[in-house]
Amino acid sequence: MNNFFNAHHSPIGAFASFTLGFPGAKGGIGQELGKPANQNIYIGLQDIAKNEFTALPFFQPTQNKLADFANFDDKPYDDSKYLKSYNKQDIERQYQMATDTWRIDELSFSIISPVESIEDPAQASESELKEVLLPAVFVELTVDNTNSQHQRMAFFGYEGNDPYSAMRFLQDSNSELIGIAQGNGTAIVSCDSNHQSELSTQIVTASGLSIEHILFSTSPEANQFSIGTTKAFLLTVPAGVTQTFRFAVCFHRSGVVTSGLASQYFYNRYFTTIEAVASYAKQHHLALINKWKKSDSLVDNIQLSDDQRFMLIHATRSYYGSTQLLDIQHKPLWVVNEGEYRMMNTLDLTADHLFFELKMNPWVVKNVLEMFIERYSYEDEIHNGDGNKYTGGLSFCHDMGVANVFAKPQHSAYEVYGNKGLFSHMTCEQLVNWICCASTYTFKIQDFDWAEKQLNIFEACLNSLVNRDNPLASARDGVMSFNSCRTIEEITTYDSLDASLGQACRNIYLASKTWAAYILMHRLFLQLGKYSLADSAIKQADLLANTLYSSINEQGFIAAVLDGSNQSKIIPVIEGLVFPYFSGILHEVEQRPSTKALINALTKHFNVVINNGCLFENGGWKLSSTSENSWLSKIYLSQFIARKILKIDLASNTALADSIHVAWLTDEELSYWAWSDQIVAGKISASKYYPRGVTAWLWLEE
Amino acid sequence: MNNFFNAHHSPIGAFASFTLGFPGAKGGIGQELGKPANQNIYIGLQDIAKNEFTALPFFQPTQNKLADFANFDDKPYDDSKYLKSYNKQDIERQYQMATDTWRIDELSFSIISPVESIEDPAQASESELKEVLLPAVFVELTVDNTNSQHQRMAFFGYEGNDPYSAMRFLQDSNSELIGIAQGNGTAIVSCDSNHQSELSTQIVTASGLSIEHILFSTSPEANQFSIGTTKAFLLTVPAGVTQTFRFAVCFHRSGVVTSGLASQYFYNRYFTTIEAVASYAKQHHLALINKWKKSDSLVDNIQLSDDQRFMLIHATRSYYGSTQLLDIQHKPLWVVNEGEYRMMNTLDLTADHLFFELKMNPWVVKNVLEMFIERYSYEDEIHNGDGNKYTGGLSFCHDMGVANVFAKPQHSAYEVYGNKGLFSHMTCEQLVNWICCASTYTFKIQDFDWAEKQLNIFEACLNSLVNRDNPLASARDGVMSFNSCRTIEEITTYDSLDASLGQACRNIYLASKTWAAYILMHRLFLQLGKYSLADSAIKQADLLANTLYSSINEQGFIAAVLDGSNQSKIIPVIEGLVFPYFSGILHEVEQRPSTKALINALTKHFNVVINNGCLFENGGWKLSSTSENSWLSKIYLSQFIARKILKIDLASNTALADSIHVAWLTDEELSYWAWSDQIVAGKISASKYYPRGVTAWLWLEE
Repeated sequence: MNNFFNAHHSPIGAFASFTLGFPGAKGGIGQELGKPANQNIYIGLQDIAKNEFTALPFFQPTQNKLADFANFDDKPYDDSKYLKSYNKQDIERQYQMATDTWRIDELSFSIISPVESIEDPAQASESELKEVLLPAVFVELTVDNTNSQHQRMAFFGYEGNDPYSAMRFLQDSNSELIGIAQGNGTAIVSCDSNHQSELSTQIVTASGLSIEHILFSTSPEANQFSIGTTKAFLLTVPAGVTQTFRFAVCFHRSGVVTSGLASQYFYNRYFTTIEAVASYAKQHHLALINKWKKSDSLVDNIQLSDDQRFMLIHATRSYYGSTQLLDIQHKPLWVVNEGEYRMMNTLDLTADHLFFELKMNPWVVKNVLEMFIERYSYEDEIHNGDGNKYTGGLSFCHDMGVANVFAKPQHSAYEVYGNKGLFSHMTCEQLVNWICCASTYTFKIQDFDWAEKQLNIFEACLNSLVNRDNPLASARDGVMSFNSCRTIEEITTYDSLDASLGQACRNIYLASKTWAAYILMHRLFLQLGKYSLADSAIKQADLLANTLYSSINEQGFIAAVLDGSNQSKIIPVIEGLVFPYFSGILHEVEQRPSTKALINALTKHFNVVINNGCLFENGGWKLSSTSENSWLSKIYLSQFIARKILKIDLASNTALADSIHVAWLTDEELSYWAWSDQIVAGKISASKYYPRGVTAWLWLEE
Repeated sequence: MNNFFNAHHSPIGAFASFTLGFPGAKGGIGQELGKPANQNIYIGLQDIAKNEFTALPFFQPTQNKLADFANFDDKPYDDSKYLKSYNKQDIERQYQMATDTWRIDELSFSIISPVESIEDPAQASESELKEVLLPAVFVELTVDNTNSQHQRMAFFGYEGNDPYSAMRFLQDSNSELIGIAQGNGTAIVSCDSNHQSELSTQIVTASGLSIEHILFSTSPEANQFSIGTTKAFLLTVPAGVTQTFRFAVCFHRSGVVTSGLASQYFYNRYFTTIEAVASYAKQHHLALINKWKKSDSLVDNIQLSDDQRFMLIHATRSYYGSTQLLDIQHKPLWVVNEGEYRMMNTLDLTADHLFFELKMNPWVVKNVLEMFIERYSYEDEIHNGDGNKYTGGLSFCHDMGVANVFAKPQHSAYEVYGNKGLFSHMTCEQLVNWICCASTYTFKIQDFDWAEKQLNIFEACLNSLVNRDNPLASARDGVMSFNSCRTIEEITTYDSLDASLGQACRNIYLASKTWAAYILMHRLFLQLGKYSLADSAIKQADLLANTLYSSINEQGFIAAVLDGSNQSKIIPVIEGLVFPYFSGILHEVEQRPSTKALINALTKHFNVVINNGCLFENGGWKLSSTSENSWLSKIYLSQFIARKILKIDLASNTALADSIHVAWLTDEELSYWAWSDQIVAGKISASKYYPRGVTAWLWLEE
């Protein structure tokens, strides 16, 4: 396996990442980006003979930069001296949930990031929130100098690339700190140095036009060149000892960061400047590092294959790097940014993040769903293309905006009016997603008080969903047949696949989730004593289940689109099952004949399609037999459903498939994008740097 | 002359520019940059047959972007349709002080920017400051559709490239506005549109993945695609009429923008959001456009050659684009950023901006000089290389920081300890600059109260300057002979030239300004009744004048360095004369025999060097006979001194030289950099996008 893939190392809710792992200037300390920051990161060590310096391969050689200055008389460096890179094959990497470590010879470098629950700000104490929202990750750099009779110098630094502000030293603005920073946005602070500590004499900061200017500098004074765009710690390790240096990599944005709807980062309540972040991180670093490292065991101690463990860790990191806890008029809003696209709280992703979030931070599910009600819901009319319009009802927008710009009320960034295909509306899909998320939240957390408050919304959702089947009651079969008048033809979350998954109308993937929505609403309305609504819901569930299972064809599968226009085999028709399962109600509802028949049909369907068209030649999963585009987040989800709910023995299939999926993610070129979702013919192609893979957390339920 | 050069179009003190003029995606709406924003700017018109669209050539063809989406089924555009560019040779440009206009066929596009005085915030009214500090420039787009029998569409838009925030519509956050924006930083607002106006129906905003998606869109709905990175106004011009549309291009940064010392933009006192900027600009646009346009006559009505007028306008624009009025703990700080380098208030530039600033905003001179006293002054020891140290005294840092990061107290961003050559200290140069600026301010504004308050500073400056001649009184000859112990060898502002101008010690350029410092302090101390100090100063002035004029050699010039190490001929030895002249005291002091002799010697020197080594072959000015590197700001200054103070008839020389200097600035490739200073062998090479050329304002005194 290629070990030189990028990974996020992120605080929680800061939309920030110290991304590292891919060779070259391809990682970096980034905020609010849909990609790695592409900065030079310098982590290295002087050789034992003290003649040269070697670093982990996370930088671009600076040859050209030196040449820029070659025409001046007084060169502060020797042209022949360059920072060398360790051989990649000699570097060991241990990639864990909280700790990511590179080891080579006498050097070890770890980044430690949090995997923790955020308490609901409505109930949590200030100190709890302050700790979990600290916008920083920690670094441990260890040098084993026991075999050397001389002191040696290690180094750790970066060349920032924010277009607006220069690199600087933290001590220039706060004498309690020693650190390097860019503007007010990113910083690395030494956690060890303080005026009382002996170690502090071993830690100095340096600045130069390049890392070579710093490392081969003729004097400490020359290393204080403020204009230098590279800044680094120089760390003296005495002869004969092993020494660990600790740092916090800090992030900060103050003031209003969003448009359309003004908000700040929630952490500004506790940290008004990056210096405040650095001070807190420094003060609490040992306790936090110890605590955070414990999250390694979240997956290490569980029966997962190495491939599964890798993907789960990798996906979780990309999720955290996309999270943003905002403060809007003194109320929190949880935002998951959509990877490279940076759409905010895409609702079809929310439905996949649900299982992870209900485990870690249930309140964020409620928080996001409420924002969808308040600002990103709408009522529409519907049509079936014959020129007539009918009452539709309530639905929800695809997202809340893009790249720190909130969309206007009742609109998403993604959806275009009057469209079909890519950038069309996902009205029915998002209605179903909202119902599934809200119901699953209610059952899982047993928060029926909240559901009671949303009763009118649930009722409106039911009516809307029923209308989209057919305005004429007698013509209903449970499955969506009418499109929103906002658009010509609705699409599903699978927007860039072919019609087998991309078309909403009569699609069996969407039908499966629609069935889940009805089943969940049925149980919910019963619970809330709304028997007539419960009755309407279960009637639709039965109709729909019947439509689905009776559509199974002679080859034993259900064609992707029920209008006969498409005969593709697709895996995601099983997706709907996960919501009642996770809600804890499946064991009850599966006693119901229509459910039993549906599950039987889906089991049969799955067994047929997985062996006839839904695998790539090498064994990787193919969500649709007619598309080369397969999505890992959904593969993870369907793997879980097939194994755990349909009780299909996938042991032989999964071991091979997972190894292929890992190979997709660790591609030598495309693993620049950390965890990514859309894989076309084995190559990461879209939905890069993406949060959605936390569906893999369902594996921990198996 | 190549008319496709970039020019700044900037508000005052917002460190912002709508840079435009160079072909391609090479201009743009930028803030806090040391270069153009490199954005696509779309300004164009539908053809009369309504089949195609043509624009001014300020964009990069978007072919690749369209290809990105070619694999989707539903293309919102026709692949064969591209935005065309007008032929460059058909475009006329009228480049004025406040108004920059491009005309082609039926289209005319003007940007109007302010050239105004800022009242001292200590005295000015809120409404005065609000108006002059408005972070916006105006645009007039006129379409002559009198020859068409159909309505036609014009367009104006941009593709922003801020890494952190998306493009958006202003109306989504403020229903009183119609506009396009990127995040909270930049925006274009329509000044015409309001709900009462008929014109508003002709003005719509559109958004798409490319300008072609917008222009060739099949429906208005498709043009509301929020994810689109290109946003534009679509402007309907009725058949048979000429219509002018007006816009404001707005800038804004809220919150803390600097590090090291926290500050906000001063305009935040009046405009807390970009919507507030847009609203004010819209409300007052007609009055402001009319008022600002009057500044065109500042140079149009004066006896300057076209070449002089061009350079004066060009330099003034680059100056304004570099200006930044900050608010630090409720006190203003004027910052001029150093072009591409972005150093803040480089003191050797302040000494060249002085004449312009004393005309426009005298208080900013005082403001900057006080900050140098408070935070960026230091006391040093001095040496002459023999290992001994002597008392030096007060001096000032080279600058106050770089790229929005304030340097720590008593330090500049530029100066490195223990250095020589580039990035060494400019201790004596900056001491002399502070004295010349502070004295000239005092005399020009007759603000002797202020000088009285700074008396101890002036006294410390005098002592420090005398010490740098020689700690031993009997060995003094007026000229600097000792270097600061902060460095090995001091340099001058001419850091990247050879020793003829770059070396500080015994340099006749610095000697000339040192003489000015003594002469000015003499008069100032007399005025303040400090006769003993005045006496010390004039003694040094006489010594120095004597040293200089007696160094004239057989060929009739003074060799650049008085230690015999360098025989170069340099022009800038005449620079010192400008300060007593501009202070209005030269007519008195030139009665003094030593001054008279000095002026005679410098006149002789100038006449020799200008004809023997200080011209390029083509007639451009060469500041030093031994360097190919010549600086336009300093050429402008010396031209003025030679003509006005030395009374040398340069008519035949200047006409040719100015045309060469204009050719340097309008180079087909390098004019990307707007006004730039360092020209090596006729090519813009460094100090690009630079503020320093406002020395040309001295020409208005001739």
